[in-house]
Amino acid sequence: MTFEYGSIPKPEDVDIVIPTIRNLDFLEQWRPFFEKHKLIIVQDGDPSRVVQIPPGFNYELYNRNDIERILGKKADCISFKDSACRCFGFLVSKAKYVYTIDDDCFVAEDPEGNKINALEQHLKNISTPSTPFFFNTLYDPFAPGSDFVRGYPFSLREGVETVVSHGLWLNIPDYDAPTQLVKPAERNTRYVNAVMTVPKGSLFPMCGMNLTFNREVIGPAMYFGLMGHGQPLGRYDDMWAGWCTKVICDHLSLGVKTGLPYIWHSKASNPFTNLKKEYKGIFWQEEIIPFFQSVTLSEDCQTVCDCYLELAQKVGEELSDLDPYFSKLSKAMITWIEAWKELNPEASSEPLPASK
Amino acid sequence: MTFEYGSIPKPEDVDIVIPTIRNLDFLEQWRPFFEKHKLIIVQDGDPSRVVQIPPGFNYELYNRNDIERILGKKADCISFKDSACRCFGFLVSKAKYVYTIDDDCFVAEDPEGNKINALEQHLKNISTPSTPFFFNTLYDPFAPGSDFVRGYPFSLREGVETVVSHGLWLNIPDYDAPTQLVKPAERNTRYVNAVMTVPKGSLFPMCGMNLTFNREVIGPAMYFGLMGHGQPLGRYDDMWAGWCTKVICDHLSLGVKTGLPYIWHSKASNPFTNLKKEYKGIFWQEEIIPFFQSVTLSEDCQTVCDCYLELAQKVGEELSDLDPYFSKLSKAMITWIEAWKELNPEASSEPLPASK
Repeated sequence: MTFEYGSIPKPEDVDIVIPTIRNLDFLEQWRPFFEKHKLIIVQDGDPSRVVQIPPGFNYELYNRNDIERILGKKADCISFKDSACRCFGFLVSKAKYVYTIDDDCFVAEDPEGNKINALEQHLKNISTPSTPFFFNTLYDPFAPGSDFVRGYPFSLREGVETVVSHGLWLNIPDYDAPTQLVKPAERNTRYVNAVMTVPKGSLFPMCGMNLTFNREVIGPAMYFGLMGHGQPLGRYDDMWAGWCTKVICDHLSLGVKTGLPYIWHSKASNPFTNLKKEYKGIFWQEEIIPFFQSVTLSEDCQTVCDCYLELAQKVGEELSDLDPYFSKLSKAMITWIEAWKELNPEASSEPLPASK
Repeated sequence: MTFEYGSIPKPEDVDIVIPTIRNLDFLEQWRPFFEKHKLIIVQDGDPSRVVQIPPGFNYELYNRNDIERILGKKADCISFKDSACRCFGFLVSKAKYVYTIDDDCFVAEDPEGNKINALEQHLKNISTPSTPFFFNTLYDPFAPGSDFVRGYPFSLREGVETVVSHGLWLNIPDYDAPTQLVKPAERNTRYVNAVMTVPKGSLFPMCGMNLTFNREVIGPAMYFGLMGHGQPLGRYDDMWAGWCTKVICDHLSLGVKTGLPYIWHSKASNPFTNLKKEYKGIFWQEEIIPFFQSVTLSEDCQTVCDCYLELAQKVGEELSDLDPYFSKLSKAMITWIEAWKELNPEASSEPLPASK
C-alpha cells in the first residue's frame, strides 16, 4: 500500500543501547550508521573495568555504581553481570526510539554485496503500520512494490501502530544450547527479503541482539528480568521481555514486526556455559508459555504501565508455584515500573499500587 | 530441525487439477515437471468447445456434461462458467495429494536463474510438519540449514501434519480489482526465500493459482463455492475455501504453510471485469471475516467432513441475513459433502444429517 513516510525519525530521536563493549572493531564498523546517534552503554560486570570508546561518538556510559546511585534501592530490579542490564539504558534514555544491539553483531551484506544499514531498515519498519489481524501472503504490504493481496479485508488495511521491529542474524543463528550442541557447524546463510507482522495471538521468541522499539510507547514492557549474578536463570532476558511485550501489544492493538534487517552475528557463545544458564528456562518455559498464551488483561488496562503491573501480579499468582523465583521476578517487575515512572514522569500520572 | 523426508510422495500420489486450458504453451512449459502426473482438467464453460492437450500427458478431461452425468442433481453445487469448477477435480481425483494451478501460471526462475520445480517444493512443504502454535523467527525450521530458535518451546517442536502448501507468484501479483486499478503497473519482483506456517488463529487469503493440499485429509474443505453463472459473486472461490479450510485446520490441529514455491503469473485479468465479479464480496467480506474469526466448532467434530457440515450450518444461520445467497451457499456446502462421500466412500461412514 502506498504510505507516506511522514515521520522517519531524526537521529536525536533514536538512542542506541549496548549492554557492554568488549570489542573496539564493533563501533568502528558501525561508525557510519551510529555516529549521529547517542550511544548508551551499560557495563554489565566489574565497574572498575575501563570501557574504551573510540573518539567521535556521543555516548553515556553507566556501570553498576551509576545504576545504584541513580536508582537507589530500586537498583535491585536491574540484573548484574548479565547483558539483561541493558534495560537500564531503556530507562535512562530520553529518546522516542531505542535500537539495542550486541557487541558481537557486525554490519551484514545483502545478496548484492551492499552493506546493510540495519538501523535505517528498523526505522522504516517502525514508521509504517503493522497488520496483526489478518495474514498478508506477500508479507509487508507497506514495503515498496508490495501491497495487500486479493481477499484482504479493506477495513483492516489501515493497520495499527508498529512499536517493535525485530531484526535477524546472518552467520551464527540464535540457537539454544541443546541445538548449538547438536548442530555446532550450522550457519544461517539464507537471506529472506521480507518483513512481516507477528499475528495477533501468536507469541514469538524475541531476541535482544538486533531490536528496535518505540520507547515512549512500549518501553515499560521492555524489562529484561532478573538474570545472571545471584539468579537461577540466564539467556531468557529478551524472551521474557518478548512474551510480556507481545501480550501487551495484542491487548492494546499495537504491532510487532520481524524479518529484515540482518546483522552479521560473528561469534557463537559457549554452548556449555549457555546450557548452565538456560537449563531451568528450558523446562520452565513449558509452563510459562501456556501462561502467556492464555493470560488476559482486564479492559481497564489502557496504558502499557497498567498492563505491565497487572501482568506482574498474574506472574506472581500463577507462576510462583513453579519456583519461588517467579515471586521475586513479579516484585522486580513492579519495581521496574516504579523506576520507569520515576525517570519518565510523563509516562503516567496514575498512582502506583504501592503508593495507593 | 533435522527431519527425515520419509515419505516424499510418488508421482501417482499427486494429481494436477487445472480449471481449464486455453493456452498450449502452458503444458509445454510444465512438461518436465508434470508429465509423470495425472492431469485432471475441468472445463469451465461451453462443453462443445474442444480443449487440446498435447501428446504425452496422462489426463482426464471433464466438461459440464460429465459433471452432470457423474453427480446428477448434486451437480448444482459445482460452479458453471467459472474456474471455481476446479473443485470437481478434487472430488473425482483418487490421489492423496492435489496440486492445482491456473493456465496463466508459468515456470518461474529463482534469483540464480534456475527454473523452479514448483510441485517439488510444494511436496517438500507438505511432507514436513507445520508449527502453528508459536512463531519461529527463522521461518520454516524444517528447511535445510534452519531450525527452531532459542526460546522456542521444545514441546511444540514436533509440529503438526501439514495439509496445505500455498505458493506465491512473481510478476503479476494477486490483487483485487481496486488495487489493480490503482496500481496497474505494479509487478512482484521480490523473491522471498522462505516458507512459513500460518499461525493458529490467523486467517489468510488463500489463492487457488498455485496450491497443493492433502486431498485425503483436507479435501472435503476445499470446496470453491458457488461462483460465476447465475451467482452474484466471482473471484471469492479460493478465498471461501481458504477461510473454511483454515478454521477447520485450527480446530483439528492441522497445518497450513505459505511462501515458496513461486510460479510466473503471466497475465493480469481485466480489472473492470474483476470489479464486477468482486464488488459484493468486497463489502460482504467485512462481515464474513469476523464470522470466520469468531466461529467455533464443537468438540465432537473430529473429521473434516463433520467440521464442514457444522460450518455449513453456521453459515446458513449467521450469514443469510447478509444476503439470501448465503442460504444457498450453505445448502451447496452440504451437497458438496454428500457428493464427496459418494465419490470417496472411505472418507467417512457416518450418516449424513440429511439421511439421519
